[in-house]
Amino acid sequence: MKAHAVIKDHVNLTPVMRSTALNSIAGKTLYFKCECFQKSGAFKFRGASNAVFSLDEAQAAKGVVTHSSGNHAAALALAAKIRGIPAYVVVPNSAPKCKVDNVKRYGGHVIFSEATMKSRQETANKVLTETGAILVPSSNDARIISGQGTLSLEFLDQAPELDTLIVPISGGGLISGVVVGAKSRNPAIRVLGAEPKGADDAAQSKAYGRLITLSHTNTIADGLRASMGDITWPIVRDLVDDIITVEDTEIIEAMRYCYEIFKVVIEPSAAIGLAAVLSNNFRKNPLWNCSQNIGIVLSGGNVDLGVLWESYGLQGHNLFGDN
Amino acid sequence: MKAHAVIKDHVNLTPVMRSTALNSIAGKTLYFKCECFQKSGAFKFRGASNAVFSLDEAQAAKGVVTHSSGNHAAALALAAKIRGIPAYVVVPNSAPKCKVDNVKRYGGHVIFSEATMKSRQETANKVLTETGAILVPSSNDARIISGQGTLSLEFLDQAPELDTLIVPISGGGLISGVVVGAKSRNPAIRVLGAEPKGADDAAQSKAYGRLITLSHTNTIADGLRASMGDITWPIVRDLVDDIITVEDTEIIEAMRYCYEIFKVVIEPSAAIGLAAVLSNNFRKNPLWNCSQNIGIVLSGGNVDLGVLWESYGLQGHNLFGDN
Repeated sequence: MKAHAVIKDHVNLTPVMRSTALNSIAGKTLYFKCECFQKSGAFKFRGASNAVFSLDEAQAAKGVVTHSSGNHAAALALAAKIRGIPAYVVVPNSAPKCKVDNVKRYGGHVIFSEATMKSRQETANKVLTETGAILVPSSNDARIISGQGTLSLEFLDQAPELDTLIVPISGGGLISGVVVGAKSRNPAIRVLGAEPKGADDAAQSKAYGRLITLSHTNTIADGLRASMGDITWPIVRDLVDDIITVEDTEIIEAMRYCYEIFKVVIEPSAAIGLAAVLSNNFRKNPLWNCSQNIGIVLSGGNVDLGVLWESYGLQGHNLFGDN
Repeated sequence: MKAHAVIKDHVNLTPVMRSTALNSIAGKTLYFKCECFQKSGAFKFRGASNAVFSLDEAQAAKGVVTHSSGNHAAALALAAKIRGIPAYVVVPNSAPKCKVDNVKRYGGHVIFSEATMKSRQETANKVLTETGAILVPSSNDARIISGQGTLSLEFLDQAPELDTLIVPISGGGLISGVVVGAKSRNPAIRVLGAEPKGADDAAQSKAYGRLITLSHTNTIADGLRASMGDITWPIVRDLVDDIITVEDTEIIEAMRYCYEIFKVVIEPSAAIGLAAVLSNNFRKNPLWNCSQNIGIVLSGGNVDLGVLWESYGLQGHNLFGDN
């Protein structure tokens, strides 16, 4: 896979963790790919660095643009910093300060817009025109998809016995790359998406056979609220085996298992694969439950733990200064 | 080292993590030995498994006893479970439920005593008499010290360029093992202890040249409140280069860096090495500040994050059932 060659010197080969306690609870053999230890704290760095390092010199010199306030923005800023080119990030003025700080920490240029999607796109277009930089969307983009797909090649090298992968689904960039990569290596492997019941556009889209987007989402998993696009949806429709939906309470309980057993810090979105395996829906579905060696992607670790530090009497401030 | 041969098939070879961001903040090159990923969630499993697996068959069959409610008790219970022998743990009836649950999770037999040290010792003696089991103290014990010392051999294999190690000091079992192991490998290496200002018995003992124990301690680092004994104190006195004391606020800030940068869950006691390196005392002391390649032991990850789960609306309960 070309993306693997492009980014392999830049990304961390993240470890795979296992737990006999969790295997016993799940009644399965589980493998956890720890992308919380990826650079920038999430798998998003794979796609972002593939986009940034695929550019030729002339394109690269003008920089990259995105309008996202989440993990993709921070990952793109870091990839651009490593290549030594500018990253422009359009952020709605309603975005939490910690997300803006993450972008700034990696040297990204933050440009504020109004909170509407229209204002974000207009602001991004203005930046594109003024700078000549290249737009790098967060999910619906071939460079992003193939970059995220490198995760599955690593995972299958680390655990060739996997018969199933469970992957969070939001915009569909991660699962599209993973399903293409994994099934090219092992056509018999099953790839299941996992999403919150309060943002179940992928499950609905698969059920109705057409791309459905939601006007309103309601979930604690802030990284799983986006919708698929015209590139990711056909891949999900044709290659992803099924979508599992889980309750927010199941997400938080799975998150707690990861903290208490693995001692890893993950964000709520990253817990959804374990939540899916432990859910009653999964156990009761014979098609899902026949999986035995299951790979789960712990997608990222960028979570605001302010309540924890406040409980220790620590004042809220930016650890990395105001740069 | 004999202990290494005894336990190497049982312990995890824990990873060493690094961060350019933290190096830049500290002005040093830092290496973090992640014992939060050790079995039972703390380095204590090294000493406990050395004690358990060093016993001959006849001794082992009668089991092991300790009176500790912390990480040592859980580690001893797990080591005994792996060998298939009983572990009896005397726990003061004032101990937090989560600590008792940890021991039970690994199959340890919990015997409650009054909260006084006199009652704990009397209860332990009663168990010893009734069962014929072997007492395994948490720190002041040659088997424990040499087990903990295996950590330094691994660490120097993983990062031979280390010129200094900073190690939490409480009962002194860990630092005694580490200083013996590290200086046998590299006599020029410096080993510094780190302890909270509110439990600075080691710093006072080194300053006065005699073993000082405190009747009262005051620190958030619950794993660092114990005192040295007649075996650990002479090793600390003669081989440990110096003791650094830090404020609780510095411990919590260092803990937060580890969560936010490394995405690892550590307990407050485990953050003290990083807190020491980042403290003003360290920077201002020319003898300490000449260290360049500094190894820090993240000693364990057993921390009660109840406030975090409550903030997510999760009810307090034992994830592992009431077994």
